[in-house]
Amino acid sequence: MSNYDQLTAHYQTISHFNHAQSMLGWDAAANMPAGGNDARSKAMAELSVHVHRLSTQPQLGEWFDKAQQELLSTEQQSSLREMKRQWQQATIVPEDLVQAQSIAGSKCEHAWRSQRPANDWEGFEKNWKEVVKLSREEAKIRSEALGSTPYDAMLDKFEPGTTTASLDTLFSDVKTWLPELIEKALDKQNSQSIIMPSGTFSTANQKALGVETMKLLKFDFDHGRLDQSVHPFCGGVPSDVRITTRYDEKDFVQALMGIVHETGHARYEQGLPKAFAGLPVGEARSMGVHESQSLFFEMQIGRSKPFISHLSQLSANAFNAHQDPVFAEENLYKIYTQVEKGFIRVDADELTYPAHVIMRYEIERDLINGVIEHTDVPALWDEKMKASLGLSTKGNYQNGCMQDIHWTDGAFGYFPSYTLGAMYAAQYKATMQQTVDIDGAIKSGDLSPIFKWLSDNIWSQASLHTTDDLIKRATGETLNAAHFRKHLETRYL
Amino acid sequence: MSNYDQLTAHYQTISHFNHAQSMLGWDAAANMPAGGNDARSKAMAELSVHVHRLSTQPQLGEWFDKAQQELLSTEQQSSLREMKRQWQQATIVPEDLVQAQSIAGSKCEHAWRSQRPANDWEGFEKNWKEVVKLSREEAKIRSEALGSTPYDAMLDKFEPGTTTASLDTLFSDVKTWLPELIEKALDKQNSQSIIMPSGTFSTANQKALGVETMKLLKFDFDHGRLDQSVHPFCGGVPSDVRITTRYDEKDFVQALMGIVHETGHARYEQGLPKAFAGLPVGEARSMGVHESQSLFFEMQIGRSKPFISHLSQLSANAFNAHQDPVFAEENLYKIYTQVEKGFIRVDADELTYPAHVIMRYEIERDLINGVIEHTDVPALWDEKMKASLGLSTKGNYQNGCMQDIHWTDGAFGYFPSYTLGAMYAAQYKATMQQTVDIDGAIKSGDLSPIFKWLSDNIWSQASLHTTDDLIKRATGETLNAAHFRKHLETRYL
Repeated sequence: MSNYDQLTAHYQTISHFNHAQSMLGWDAAANMPAGGNDARSKAMAELSVHVHRLSTQPQLGEWFDKAQQELLSTEQQSSLREMKRQWQQATIVPEDLVQAQSIAGSKCEHAWRSQRPANDWEGFEKNWKEVVKLSREEAKIRSEALGSTPYDAMLDKFEPGTTTASLDTLFSDVKTWLPELIEKALDKQNSQSIIMPSGTFSTANQKALGVETMKLLKFDFDHGRLDQSVHPFCGGVPSDVRITTRYDEKDFVQALMGIVHETGHARYEQGLPKAFAGLPVGEARSMGVHESQSLFFEMQIGRSKPFISHLSQLSANAFNAHQDPVFAEENLYKIYTQVEKGFIRVDADELTYPAHVIMRYEIERDLINGVIEHTDVPALWDEKMKASLGLSTKGNYQNGCMQDIHWTDGAFGYFPSYTLGAMYAAQYKATMQQTVDIDGAIKSGDLSPIFKWLSDNIWSQASLHTTDDLIKRATGETLNAAHFRKHLETRYL
Repeated sequence: MSNYDQLTAHYQTISHFNHAQSMLGWDAAANMPAGGNDARSKAMAELSVHVHRLSTQPQLGEWFDKAQQELLSTEQQSSLREMKRQWQQATIVPEDLVQAQSIAGSKCEHAWRSQRPANDWEGFEKNWKEVVKLSREEAKIRSEALGSTPYDAMLDKFEPGTTTASLDTLFSDVKTWLPELIEKALDKQNSQSIIMPSGTFSTANQKALGVETMKLLKFDFDHGRLDQSVHPFCGGVPSDVRITTRYDEKDFVQALMGIVHETGHARYEQGLPKAFAGLPVGEARSMGVHESQSLFFEMQIGRSKPFISHLSQLSANAFNAHQDPVFAEENLYKIYTQVEKGFIRVDADELTYPAHVIMRYEIERDLINGVIEHTDVPALWDEKMKASLGLSTKGNYQNGCMQDIHWTDGAFGYFPSYTLGAMYAAQYKATMQQTVDIDGAIKSGDLSPIFKWLSDNIWSQASLHTTDDLIKRATGETLNAAHFRKHLETRYL
């Protein structure tokens, strides 16, 4: 057996344990009674330890060295590159630091769950200090290995190839036009009236509506399911994708669009190439590219007028309320494109969302690079929220810098993925519409031409190329914020 | 760390992988879409290989030798005995035989799924021949290690401590009185009329009824769930027990009593001692003792008059049919104690069931011991069915010797567990009623005194004692078929 084949078999073995881990995680969120938590945590920790052990086995270095001398096809070279990348990610940070981070992160996140509602910055700061310190240590070690700045090294975990230099360029461009665009959109919407849903929307009816919507989006129910959990997510494995949502019986709007979003993640997973199943090269390219699929489904398809027209019919059917003006096309479209300046990122609309992300990016970049200290964050937050959305968070930590879970356990470098995803999605659409009648396809109810483009250009490509190459092959250029701007202007002006 | 402690840590590690395996198995039956099967099978096979590797690690032999010299409490000695038993079970049969059995068993079982409906004995016989041959090889190896007959060595896998000698005594006793008892019961029932359920019993209502019944039986929903699957079973782990059932919307009778049965299995699991969680000594004692719990719940509690009175109320409520004579106490009791001679074991009633088991026992015993050949089985089946239930299966293989899945993949030695379980359950009741007002407790709706007895005597004892000791400690004597006979006579005469 060649070294390349040995590596392939080894990574497929790892994927089987990851399969178990992924399904146990889904089950913990979707099914598990509270009393099962202790045994489940132990089982999942054991699987993590085992996967880490397999991912860092001493002989791997030699196999990689020798495999690089073997005669490999282009695809095999990509496969080798991605296996090696996972190996480097697994071995780069020393065990004791990983463990210290895990303990500090769990402690900080656990306390945060009660500190946030109590607006207790002082209590939070004491735990978070350690998380920041350890993340800086991690960033330093990674940056030395990669020859990059500390924050670039953290970005590399989630968005390989993306750098501070490129993000600074993209985001500073956005900052030149976004605030004015938000004001104009708000002005325009000032005059319009919206009828908001009222009454009861049973979970059973909402689920049936979700399933109908997923069928329209060609979710493959032979390779996946829809369930419920407190925090919606897309989990499972490519041949059995488990998406979840949360239903509010007073309002169907969030859950419905949430299902559209998760279906985007799901179809990416379902569309990954079978030939590379279980191998790193067969996995999704990055967090940002994953988000580009969920956001293509949500923003480019889901909130488009022809799709809202389908949702109008499907939801009126589901709730047996054909006369209710809430479900009228025009009204639903207004609901799904309403702009509002708010404190909370997860509640933000498409237009104000990038403002939330960019300020987090600027703060975490400077924090990890040692330009600012963690105690500077509340004041910076207040300043940036005022500048971008005109809202002060002075003394309001719970709706300010304490609102997200990401930083509590040291996931620095993740936030940019959200806006990168939105930008990629707008750029795909700009290219796609040169060859596909997108609105026509949506109107007809047969969206296959859209999905074929995504499948050909994104899903089937998995991690065969770097992100830049993937985007260039799909759209003819690397990421260009102009498409995102144009999309937003078209929709909101 | 002592060798005993090392072994303890090692078996707890194994239990975490078994946790994953068990939950993946439950998910495959209860949730998984068909397209997920391929990846799931690979993941579960990988976990099996890993557990087998951990269970047969070379250093274990030395640890066991040394641990036996260490100063251990009585409970630790029991724990060591059970770990060692699992180790011996894992190492006794050579790898290549295990693999050959797995391949031959899968092939035979897979073909059987279409051969049975086609009544194709000739086709089946060709595959089964190999399964029997390999099982005999396994039995020979086990018997040499244990110093027993080949069939006793197979029994030991499922019912450690149970021997052909004891089963021959028990079952030959049953054979002296069962046929006459069946005839008398049939005579008695000849004159009675039963109203069978008709109409539609929605899955949702049946599930709600099942949940109410489980609450009456004090199933702990903080440590378990009820779901659906094609073949009902009890899975999961002790702190998170997953039971399943199958609903027939034309008839609620089977599913309801099936839930009572699985709840018995579940409460045994939920009642296992936390102090030994993850260790062999903390597991259920044997298949027969497990069945003694499900059958105590089904036969001793579930089909008793006072419990049927609860079921009468609960089901009339669930289906909103208080006037329907189907749900009248007397009628439901008749339904749940109806005796009928039939071909199929899984459809058999409490009274005829032992006849099905005993003939299987006699055939598999002689087959494994080399007294008969696999080609003798159809004729023997016909002969024994005629003798015990007066039914001929000549040429009727699908409802004869091809009806069960057990033999298709070589699970010889399992069948006796069913009737051992029924006998243990009757014996518990005989002892329990000396100190507990069983009918009174059921009538009152607070069954705690019954569950306290089971918990004290069976659940909390896990595998601390051998089966014989467990039964002797609980009832003052080893297994005695007289209690079973008395129970059946009281109910059916």
